[in-house]
Amino acid sequence: MSTKFRAAIIGSTGYGGVELIRLLLSHPNVEITSVISSSSAGTPIADGYPHLNQIMLDKLDGIDIDEIKQKSDVVFIAAPHGVAIELAPKLLDAGLKVIDISGDFRLKSGEVYEQWYKHKAADPTYVEKAVYGLSEVFADEVKGTEFVSNPGCFPTATLLGLVPLVSKGWADLSSIIIDSKSGVSGAGRGLSLTSHYSEINENFLAYKVNKHQHTPEIEQVLSRVAGEEVVVTFTTHLVPMTRGILSTMYVNLKGKHTEDEIIEMFQQYYEGRRFVRIRSKGKWPATKEVWGSNYCDIGISLDERTGRLTVISVIDNVVKGAAGQAVQNLNLMMGWDEGAGLAFTPVYP
Amino acid sequence: MSTKFRAAIIGSTGYGGVELIRLLLSHPNVEITSVISSSSAGTPIADGYPHLNQIMLDKLDGIDIDEIKQKSDVVFIAAPHGVAIELAPKLLDAGLKVIDISGDFRLKSGEVYEQWYKHKAADPTYVEKAVYGLSEVFADEVKGTEFVSNPGCFPTATLLGLVPLVSKGWADLSSIIIDSKSGVSGAGRGLSLTSHYSEINENFLAYKVNKHQHTPEIEQVLSRVAGEEVVVTFTTHLVPMTRGILSTMYVNLKGKHTEDEIIEMFQQYYEGRRFVRIRSKGKWPATKEVWGSNYCDIGISLDERTGRLTVISVIDNVVKGAAGQAVQNLNLMMGWDEGAGLAFTPVYP
Amino acid sequence: MSTKFRAAIIGSTGYGGVELIRLLLSHPNVEITSVISSSSAGTPIADGYPHLNQIMLDKLDGIDIDEIKQKSDVVFIAAPHGVAIELAPKLLDAGLKVIDISGDFRLKSGEVYEQWYKHKAADPTYVEKAVYGLSEVFADEVKGTEFVSNPGCFPTATLLGLVPLVSKGWADLSSIIIDSKSGVSGAGRGLSLTSHYSEINENFLAYKVNKHQHTPEIEQVLSRVAGEEVVVTFTTHLVPMTRGILSTMYVNLKGKHTEDEIIEMFQQYYEGRRFVRIRSKGKWPATKEVWGSNYCDIGISLDERTGRLTVISVIDNVVKGAAGQAVQNLNLMMGWDEGAGLAFTPVYP
Amino acid sequence: MSTKFRAAIIGSTGYGGVELIRLLLSHPNVEITSVISSSSAGTPIADGYPHLNQIMLDKLDGIDIDEIKQKSDVVFIAAPHGVAIELAPKLLDAGLKVIDISGDFRLKSGEVYEQWYKHKAADPTYVEKAVYGLSEVFADEVKGTEFVSNPGCFPTATLLGLVPLVSKGWADLSSIIIDSKSGVSGAGRGLSLTSHYSEINENFLAYKVNKHQHTPEIEQVLSRVAGEEVVVTFTTHLVPMTRGILSTMYVNLKGKHTEDEIIEMFQQYYEGRRFVRIRSKGKWPATKEVWGSNYCDIGISLDERTGRLTVISVIDNVVKGAAGQAVQNLNLMMGWDEGAGLAFTPVYP
Repeated sequence: MSTKFRAAIIGSTGYGGVELIRLLLSHPNVEITSVISSSSAGTPIADGYPHLNQIMLDKLDGIDIDEIKQKSDVVFIAAPHGVAIELAPKLLDAGLKVIDISGDFRLKSGEVYEQWYKHKAADPTYVEKAVYGLSEVFADEVKGTEFVSNPGCFPTATLLGLVPLVSKGWADLSSIIIDSKSGVSGAGRGLSLTSHYSEINENFLAYKVNKHQHTPEIEQVLSRVAGEEVVVTFTTHLVPMTRGILSTMYVNLKGKHTEDEIIEMFQQYYEGRRFVRIRSKGKWPATKEVWGSNYCDIGISLDERTGRLTVISVIDNVVKGAAGQAVQNLNLMMGWDEGAGLAFTPVYP
Repeated sequence: MSTKFRAAIIGSTGYGGVELIRLLLSHPNVEITSVISSSSAGTPIADGYPHLNQIMLDKLDGIDIDEIKQKSDVVFIAAPHGVAIELAPKLLDAGLKVIDISGDFRLKSGEVYEQWYKHKAADPTYVEKAVYGLSEVFADEVKGTEFVSNPGCFPTATLLGLVPLVSKGWADLSSIIIDSKSGVSGAGRGLSLTSHYSEINENFLAYKVNKHQHTPEIEQVLSRVAGEEVVVTFTTHLVPMTRGILSTMYVNLKGKHTEDEIIEMFQQYYEGRRFVRIRSKGKWPATKEVWGSNYCDIGISLDERTGRLTVISVIDNVVKGAAGQAVQNLNLMMGWDEGAGLAFTPVYP
Repeated sequence: MSTKFRAAIIGSTGYGGVELIRLLLSHPNVEITSVISSSSAGTPIADGYPHLNQIMLDKLDGIDIDEIKQKSDVVFIAAPHGVAIELAPKLLDAGLKVIDISGDFRLKSGEVYEQWYKHKAADPTYVEKAVYGLSEVFADEVKGTEFVSNPGCFPTATLLGLVPLVSKGWADLSSIIIDSKSGVSGAGRGLSLTSHYSEINENFLAYKVNKHQHTPEIEQVLSRVAGEEVVVTFTTHLVPMTRGILSTMYVNLKGKHTEDEIIEMFQQYYEGRRFVRIRSKGKWPATKEVWGSNYCDIGISLDERTGRLTVISVIDNVVKGAAGQAVQNLNLMMGWDEGAGLAFTPVYP
Repeated sequence: MSTKFRAAIIGSTGYGGVELIRLLLSHPNVEITSVISSSSAGTPIADGYPHLNQIMLDKLDGIDIDEIKQKSDVVFIAAPHGVAIELAPKLLDAGLKVIDISGDFRLKSGEVYEQWYKHKAADPTYVEKAVYGLSEVFADEVKGTEFVSNPGCFPTATLLGLVPLVSKGWADLSSIIIDSKSGVSGAGRGLSLTSHYSEINENFLAYKVNKHQHTPEIEQVLSRVAGEEVVVTFTTHLVPMTRGILSTMYVNLKGKHTEDEIIEMFQQYYEGRRFVRIRSKGKWPATKEVWGSNYCDIGISLDERTGRLTVISVIDNVVKGAAGQAVQNLNLMMGWDEGAGLAFTPVYP
């Protein structure tokens, strides 16, 4: 009989769910005991994902709180927003640990949630309990919690590039502009014209300009770190590739700092955090350099002509931007090595 | 005997040159009388570009000013920077019209040219003569000139999105940030690791951050339009696609304007200019929507939370960003219909 | 008042329809008088296809035979199979010329149609009238007909590579194997997991192995040319690109022929047919070399070790494989220059 | 002091070498003790491969047999052909185990090698010693050998799909046609126009038709298994993607067999070999379903109309087609679990 920690995954047929399966299958302390999908319950998961043939023979389970409680210690919710609002409280009440990958519990204000998500907000009691799992920034809060709300993909890439500056008080808070670019997998497996191959291949476009629901999430964290309200300009673009996010961030500095100083400050901020890598002077990261891995790589450029700072950060949206950070948060919750099950090299080329 | 206007193309084996061939082959008033390449002289052009089999049987000529003078009325120079510096003066002195697609004659200051291009600047007498061919903005100057310096690809997309705002005095000139993204063909046919398929496919990256040589070109035009010196922040990124540029531009407004007002102002600015299309409220263009065509499409979003304006413009970098605008400039120089040889629909999908 | 030939397009919101619009907009003898879509009637076509902004202002019409009769001389049907079965007879009875791009009237045997298309076959009277519009092979029949059934994309690429060999009696008819590869646009704009970007990007797969409905179409033509029944092996694959088909065809030769002889025979077979280009010895075509154009390029390799011939042909599936050949057929029907409206250069790169 | 098995990698800056690094970094029994590159010796490997930042800090070594002998137990040679011809004998003479990923020792006939590779063949004494490491077919020979010649990428995908049929005597040996398609990484990191992004993106083409140097390698193995000389037709195509090979193979059967029988025969042939997965009836594999992994997936289709069998196999060319199978062979040589260091799930999507 296994003594591993038992994980259930709700939303196993989405890209976030199937990536959780990939990561947890090689996690030394965890075993997957239930893959759950309300839409495909009863069929083998490999039917919809043939890459799992002979790797995962399990049939998909339906959603049954009692059964989940019997079979698992932690539940990952990798479902579209709105689902966790219903399920997370029940799972928590059943004594399970919960890591929610959706946006349902990220925003502390229900009003703000409803405005940006166009959906009824979650019960505030549970929103209060949720720890925002930006692992490198809020590790101390994640340790020992029962309930993690995993950050969005854009906020992860963006905040890791901005928090040191804001935390240190170096940023002119009224000047922050974030120009983000994402691969198509961020939109999930649901069919839509904006994920249709012939429309997106050899194409580049902006979408949800000034309207993306990750805007208040970024602002909430920056405001908390700054100790005052921060408003940002945030634009998202779609890149004709499957995985990867790159955020280009523009910040006016309040005081005088050299590029070297800023790079060093970033390195100190992330000292000991293996998954954030700061590039040396004159080098900027590419999304492919973190492909399939949990790294966030950051490069910095100070324009002496304008005094404006450009910060560039990259992640794999499916890993560090979703499933990988969720596993990292589980590791933190459990007091395991932060990199357990995540210590693999990016796939290159 | 043909009575068409005779065109020679120097640099016919680059992507700009080969696109000029495509466009001029269907131009009603022009015939190509010489395709010139110093490196491949003597071989049929279809050897290196099999898509031209049975379309263009010509062998490539070498560079011989006398021969060019005999055979042509206008010369397009589509060579790497540094070449036109030598050739353009000779061709002009020989009485030919010249349209230079390289950066050699765009910057009025030799000092600035040398700083950004790391190459000795052109003879100031000829720099002075060169008309900057941003067709929709400087059409009056292009009409009747003998010598056009064709704008760079990034400046074309960017300036068409910014000039109306600056011209009207609505932009806070110290606030301009330009985040540009380009397909790989902009780097040309020369081999390099950053154009190597396995490195760039499924990848997205920033390059030449705060160092791109198109920066002073953009600033020169904005300064001229503004009547005062303008400095911008300009970042370029590489998109895993062949053609297309999208520029996302951030501008603080000096006064209060509604989104509707701004859109209407843009529409008025470009009234009668068929190749600039302003999108209606809430719509932003995608690069694919101008693919293979001479259009520049522009979308506008005003964020009422920050008072900041976002302008998004797209072009096909090989057409409007190079060969197409060069043909448009020839049309203007000659007093022909601006769209002669360019009146085709984008290829979609 | 225009004296141009008036064309209506049924299925204007599919990729075949929208490509017909692109081609006919630059056709010297034709004007588009009605763009028709049963699903989107009443909305401007540019709403769904923004690349047509300021190019085509028309609203989509519904299907009304009387109205079509009033407004047009020829009707292109670019709808999914099953639609033309109903409409084509009515349009023909109304005295209109009809060019059907679907598979509905290609197979002379209703039984075979029903077996491969899983749909009730068309009225045999009209099937009998339909001329199979493989332009280079059946031009004589197309001239003067009122009703063309336009070939499928795979059959076009494949038959142009095989018909000369079969026609000449050089092919061992029992040996023909066709390995075809297609870009994703062949599957149309309808949403499906096999056209979903994240599934198809960086992926290559076979589909409908030994079951593709173009198999009997290829066999019907080869049998007719051979004068005896021909059965082929036909496999289709999906390539992560938008446009392009490449067919690799394997044929055992009945007698002894050199590679030079075979190439010459192909050149003679297609003499005077501008859209078929035979590559010289040791050269094979790439799909990009016909991109956006009506060309079919063919390369040939004879393996002296096995005595087996390899024929490689490429087309742009949306042009020569659909809309372009349809326009070519209209030209033939009307006695116009075969290349009217089609004389453009492939877009490269 | 480590008691792990010590590996050196010659050719560490090629794609095969850098993938060996990725795989060996997570191998439980192995440590990398030297990364070697004659061209980049002295520089940190992460300079050329930033994805290795903070993962592998080593500087590249030059080639020094004595030093290699001091530092390592096994040497992987991942260099272009011609290099191992010189180095492998010296390394073997020094008492090291050698796994050569190049084509230098695959062909038993020096004459055939020189004909296809246009390079002087290796010393026959060492050619004789080399065991052809097609792991699932020749595992017994690999066990205990000191010198493995690792199969080519196309032969791996192809032979795993054909050997069961030939071994069983079911194939008409004169009928074998192999139509292979490969991603661009197979051509390596060396710059060339056929790996230039703008040329290959949105493009599909055949290359080296009837001339690929993997032809005699495939024939050698099939002939050995058949016990008689086998000649095949083999065509290679380039797919616009980075990783993946798909081989479509056509074989006439000698006797009568149902599809079910054939599938069952394949399953039995590969019983207990975890890295070959046979798809069930009516299912064919896609390259993405093995992406980043050591699997070879195979699908089968029998066309009852022609009696011809179609076998479709897929691999990741960089893993099972190169570095992965090399690690698998090390595992077999050492008597370790065949899947040590290779037990990871394909990355999807």
